[in-house]
Amino acid sequence: MSGTVVIGLDVGGTSTRAAAVALDGTRLGTGRGGGGNPTSHGADAAARELLTALRGALTDVDPARVRAGTIGLAGAGRLLADPAGREAFDRAWHDAGLRCPYAVHGDALVAYASGTASPDGTVLIAGTGAIAAAVHDLRLDRVADGHGWLLGDAGSGFWLGREAVRRLLADLDSGRTPDALGRQVLTDLLGTAAVAARPRDTVDSAVQAVTRRPPVELARLAPLVVTAAVAGEPVATTLIAEAADHLVESASRIRPADADTPIVLGGGLLTGATPLAAAVREAAGRRWPEALLCSAGDGAAAAAWLAARDLPEVDDPEALHPLFLAPPP
Amino acid sequence: MSGTVVIGLDVGGTSTRAAAVALDGTRLGTGRGGGGNPTSHGADAAARELLTALRGALTDVDPARVRAGTIGLAGAGRLLADPAGREAFDRAWHDAGLRCPYAVHGDALVAYASGTASPDGTVLIAGTGAIAAAVHDLRLDRVADGHGWLLGDAGSGFWLGREAVRRLLADLDSGRTPDALGRQVLTDLLGTAAVAARPRDTVDSAVQAVTRRPPVELARLAPLVVTAAVAGEPVATTLIAEAADHLVESASRIRPADADTPIVLGGGLLTGATPLAAAVREAAGRRWPEALLCSAGDGAAAAAWLAARDLPEVDDPEALHPLFLAPPP
Repeated sequence: MSGTVVIGLDVGGTSTRAAAVALDGTRLGTGRGGGGNPTSHGADAAARELLTALRGALTDVDPARVRAGTIGLAGAGRLLADPAGREAFDRAWHDAGLRCPYAVHGDALVAYASGTASPDGTVLIAGTGAIAAAVHDLRLDRVADGHGWLLGDAGSGFWLGREAVRRLLADLDSGRTPDALGRQVLTDLLGTAAVAARPRDTVDSAVQAVTRRPPVELARLAPLVVTAAVAGEPVATTLIAEAADHLVESASRIRPADADTPIVLGGGLLTGATPLAAAVREAAGRRWPEALLCSAGDGAAAAAWLAARDLPEVDDPEALHPLFLAPPP
Repeated sequence: MSGTVVIGLDVGGTSTRAAAVALDGTRLGTGRGGGGNPTSHGADAAARELLTALRGALTDVDPARVRAGTIGLAGAGRLLADPAGREAFDRAWHDAGLRCPYAVHGDALVAYASGTASPDGTVLIAGTGAIAAAVHDLRLDRVADGHGWLLGDAGSGFWLGREAVRRLLADLDSGRTPDALGRQVLTDLLGTAAVAARPRDTVDSAVQAVTRRPPVELARLAPLVVTAAVAGEPVATTLIAEAADHLVESASRIRPADADTPIVLGGGLLTGATPLAAAVREAAGRRWPEALLCSAGDGAAAAAWLAARDLPEVDDPEALHPLFLAPPP
């Protein structure tokens, strides 16, 4: 089989995904590696995962057919500014048999492109952290939040987890029996939902259980909030609504009040039919009634689409988007 | 000179203060040592500072005249549960020539007793952290907040500093020029108030400047907020009002809505005529219109008063309170 192939990579903190795609959108191969972020894993370890993912995607594809590639990763700017990191990535690319150039973009741009072909719009991402970015001509423009758990990430998984603990502690301080969400948080932290005869002892134990771990691990409690919100628990529903308001507020820092461009919702807490996505759709719909709200899709396919756009044989990149981003049959 | 003497110690994270007081309230001596908290400094180092402060207070007093003593410190419960810590304190007490027993109380109780002689009431403290406690029969009863910077300390110096940075980052995200408070925060963090051509670069630098230090050091920015509030800057005034609401909410967890007992305001941000104390007085006055709001005074003198209360020759401990806590002439 001949014909031009493009390759896309979505490099995340816990997994690296690659897709080799023909220009008619046919998925020729996919590959997967472990977390490949050079900032958190080191350049060489990240490059190894990149190579694993690339080799998977190229199992049934002649690398000489690949004409363009795009790598999406968090902190793309740091990689580009780091000669050692860039060299490790070049080497992985070469070791996979690839001879074409590749572009590096922020993961937020790839998430955006996985939800829409529109050159201008907004992407709003909530996972462990939270960030909003304006996209202009399919480039990241201004960014809001993404300030990390200590100073920002308002409405993120970290934020939801921390707030769930704070509500629990307020209940214990007040002498109230923890609600169902609070009992689940207690069980996660202490292995039991039982409150000590002196509730302050339970408060102290819970605080110590949290502070023994890295703070960002509070994000691990976010799924408890999501599940409780699905079950209709009032405190969880309130926390989800507050998180949505924070996320929309962050987006409003970089999105004009009269914008009618698409908004793509990405990250583990906003992709698909999650309670937080529903709450953000509602809050964003109130603020920007003209906006189309899209869900992020396959990041590796979106990266491949971004690579295809610049090929001379591609006349109408927007027409390719539904072919690349259609869910595999 | 003869007659009974009591001794009080106020052990804090940055200084240890001792006062030797006659039963008519005459201050016979005062002493000062460095930070003496056994939890943060280690038991032996803490005991050394205790001894320094004690020797200062006893310079002109025969230790045999001292009949009772009280030590107030944060984490009093931990000291009492720690045989090595207790032994180090016993040794310092003995090395100072003291042969009477001493009691150990939480610093919150000593702060409370420095503001009122009433056996029942509430103490609300905001310094680097924040805590509220109910006092019953001059013993600490239920406690609210004091959960540390990651999960609580709402309305504290840490909280004010973090919120000041968050407002600055929101302004930079939005493309707004930082206000006067924001410029002072920027100068503290980066050595200049100038915003880069790409404001995101300033955002990244500011976030890095904060995350390079221990998080609790954000409390160092609180005085900037206080000064800006005194100058009438609107964002600072809003932050002070929000901090006051948080503090009053914490107190409401452990103080009944119809309580008419005194509320003592303590800690660096609430002692004296500070903007936060004024805001808390206003917010607490709305919630508990019958409450007398008092400012915390001399902790070492209050500890000495607590020690005097239990002596057989003291018939009316409340009558002693104004004598012990009157400002020195």
